[in-house]
Amino acid sequence: MKFIKTPVKGMLDMLPSDMRLREHVFSMIKKSYGAYGFMQIETPIVEHIENLTSKQGGDNEKLIFKVMKRGADLQRAIDKGAGEYADNGLRYDLTVPLARYYANNKEHLPTPFKALQMGNVYRADNPQKGRFRQFTQCDIDILGDGSSLAEIELITATAAMLTEIFAEIGITDFTIHLNDRQMLSAVALSAGFKEEEIGSVLISLDKFDKIGLDGIEAELLEGGYDPEVVGRYLSVYRAVEEGVTIEAFCRDISRDVLSEKVIANLSDILECVRPMLAPGVKIVFDPTLVRGMGYYTGPIFEITMDDYNFSIAGGGRYDKMIGKFSGQDVAASGFSIGFERIITILKDHMQGSYKLKNATAFLIDKRVSTARKTEVIARAMELRKEGAVATVLPMAKNVGNQIKLLENEGYDKFEKIYE
Amino acid sequence: MKFIKTPVKGMLDMLPSDMRLREHVFSMIKKSYGAYGFMQIETPIVEHIENLTSKQGGDNEKLIFKVMKRGADLQRAIDKGAGEYADNGLRYDLTVPLARYYANNKEHLPTPFKALQMGNVYRADNPQKGRFRQFTQCDIDILGDGSSLAEIELITATAAMLTEIFAEIGITDFTIHLNDRQMLSAVALSAGFKEEEIGSVLISLDKFDKIGLDGIEAELLEGGYDPEVVGRYLSVYRAVEEGVTIEAFCRDISRDVLSEKVIANLSDILECVRPMLAPGVKIVFDPTLVRGMGYYTGPIFEITMDDYNFSIAGGGRYDKMIGKFSGQDVAASGFSIGFERIITILKDHMQGSYKLKNATAFLIDKRVSTARKTEVIARAMELRKEGAVATVLPMAKNVGNQIKLLENEGYDKFEKIYE
Repeated sequence: MKFIKTPVKGMLDMLPSDMRLREHVFSMIKKSYGAYGFMQIETPIVEHIENLTSKQGGDNEKLIFKVMKRGADLQRAIDKGAGEYADNGLRYDLTVPLARYYANNKEHLPTPFKALQMGNVYRADNPQKGRFRQFTQCDIDILGDGSSLAEIELITATAAMLTEIFAEIGITDFTIHLNDRQMLSAVALSAGFKEEEIGSVLISLDKFDKIGLDGIEAELLEGGYDPEVVGRYLSVYRAVEEGVTIEAFCRDISRDVLSEKVIANLSDILECVRPMLAPGVKIVFDPTLVRGMGYYTGPIFEITMDDYNFSIAGGGRYDKMIGKFSGQDVAASGFSIGFERIITILKDHMQGSYKLKNATAFLIDKRVSTARKTEVIARAMELRKEGAVATVLPMAKNVGNQIKLLENEGYDKFEKIYE
Repeated sequence: MKFIKTPVKGMLDMLPSDMRLREHVFSMIKKSYGAYGFMQIETPIVEHIENLTSKQGGDNEKLIFKVMKRGADLQRAIDKGAGEYADNGLRYDLTVPLARYYANNKEHLPTPFKALQMGNVYRADNPQKGRFRQFTQCDIDILGDGSSLAEIELITATAAMLTEIFAEIGITDFTIHLNDRQMLSAVALSAGFKEEEIGSVLISLDKFDKIGLDGIEAELLEGGYDPEVVGRYLSVYRAVEEGVTIEAFCRDISRDVLSEKVIANLSDILECVRPMLAPGVKIVFDPTLVRGMGYYTGPIFEITMDDYNFSIAGGGRYDKMIGKFSGQDVAASGFSIGFERIITILKDHMQGSYKLKNATAFLIDKRVSTARKTEVIARAMELRKEGAVATVLPMAKNVGNQIKLLENEGYDKFEKIYE
């Protein structure tokens, strides 16, 4: 019999120290978002293959782990030759299941509904450093609120949560970037791009951090776009100065392609969020912020930390997505927190594992009598009642190594019982 | 495009009230076992198909959700015709992954290692009331401890945990049943059964609660066993009186088939555990306790509650199982807690959902100015800092229904902001 002791490729076994850190972060996230009225929900990890392959998931749909049909269904598929062998798949994100969940349970839920999801998702990606085939996502979403209040709550709650978590390692500075999909479209239309070109233009603009405006210009020209349009388009972004206000940025954009409502909505978010932030946290209007996913329809936002070259959280409004699933449009805005990234940053700064505190190990020699053992166990019970960790273990032959491994986990008091 | 809004068959969407209850129980379990030095670990939900089909999982192996190969591997399997399409599967329990985990990570872990696992398992069972295809298991295991200390810690910790959880609904009485696989074998051998008949004799004895000793007798005779042997065998159990001691029960069993060590070990467990139990909790020697799984090798135990006809937790020693996987024997004893059963019992007694406490909803009319909104949001922030739940929502057209649904979740204070 072949027994494989390593986990499945790209998936991890979690050691006790990993779990202590993860559980600590989980509980801070739950507490923080819970105070804002986000309610935890859960969907099954297994989802209908039909829902996973509906073209809403972008490239992630290529990475689905498919779950095979069983019994007679499977036999039928095999007999058919070119049949479909899978009826289910593992979810690749938390957004598709949320859309299904909301369609299924809407009448039992408050409106608007503020959801918190924390759970594993699966992608048959090529494993590489920091990229896994099973990893934890943490999403908050507000469904049924078309107003700026949704973004205000999403952003203030997430800023408060991150402030609290990172305070533990002395990081207090991060930046919230805010933009709007409709603003991005308006700039492109205003420069002379056509509606159907916006998608690919934004794919180029999204590379701003990597290739700069000159790189974007080269790419657009290579793509065959009119040099004059490209020039007009990029001149808008070239003129942007740090700390540009929404009003200043929009001054020259035709109101034919950009409604005052979009501008007012974005200003409203900035004005309401700004006074709620802890010192060190900034919110800025960032006209070059794009966010990859095509399904965003309104405000988009991202949080970056100065010392890391990745965003720690990102999201936006996606008013049309749930309707594409369920046939009924639902206003929706969500923020996805890079849980695994938070863990990476905390580990970087903590120099080692997250340890037990106030933990006693009683190590009992095998000659010890039942009566004496009962005494020791009773003492361990007392310590537990006082809130300490206590364990009663048989003394190992190599007691030095036993103690060393217990110390690694954080045990700091040892009592050896020989008789 | 076909969109399916119900979850996959046999799996559940968790509503906020479900999650509040589950999270509450999770956190009590973690805290309770944590104090005893059980360390939380996690394995991937996806496991190698080879490990899942190794014959250690009994009937559960028939119920595996298989995960399909991908890319070139899948194509090869299809081209072969009768190829194996799956390379992975979803775990059907937490014990097989634990055996793999321990083989993989042993050198980083303390010895003995006290593990706590809480996670979902998957079985393509026929869904029926209270039986699901995705459900949560909660296991504690002690690996590398061959002494009675393992059982003492497993049982006292679990009794303490259940005492604490059920105290909330006023249930204080439950019974811990203790027996030993070697004792069960000894009785059968002593009566004249052959070694290889023990397995099937115990399958009959396991039905004691359902069909009684007469039913077992009928079944064994039907099975073709010697009436004299069957008579001798059952006379031992017929003579058992309530509260029988281990010593009294073993008096007439030949020491050729039952070593004094087994008796002493079992007595030791009883003596050490008994004084640690809360009032209302009993531990009894139960000579008819069998526990289904064939892999048990020593003490077995189960916890029952008087008002329910199922056990709430069960476990035992399985010293040979990990070795069958990894080739190296590891002493092991574990307790599996019926998490979903605990949830069922709590729900029965709580008459409704587990609700939010101290929760305020600010309902904001759309005419409200940005400045006024900022004021309200700041007040919500204050409440959150004081430990309350506060949410800021746009007022719905049907505000009465909005309030009703929020009240369902536990919101108890409402403030309507019109201007």
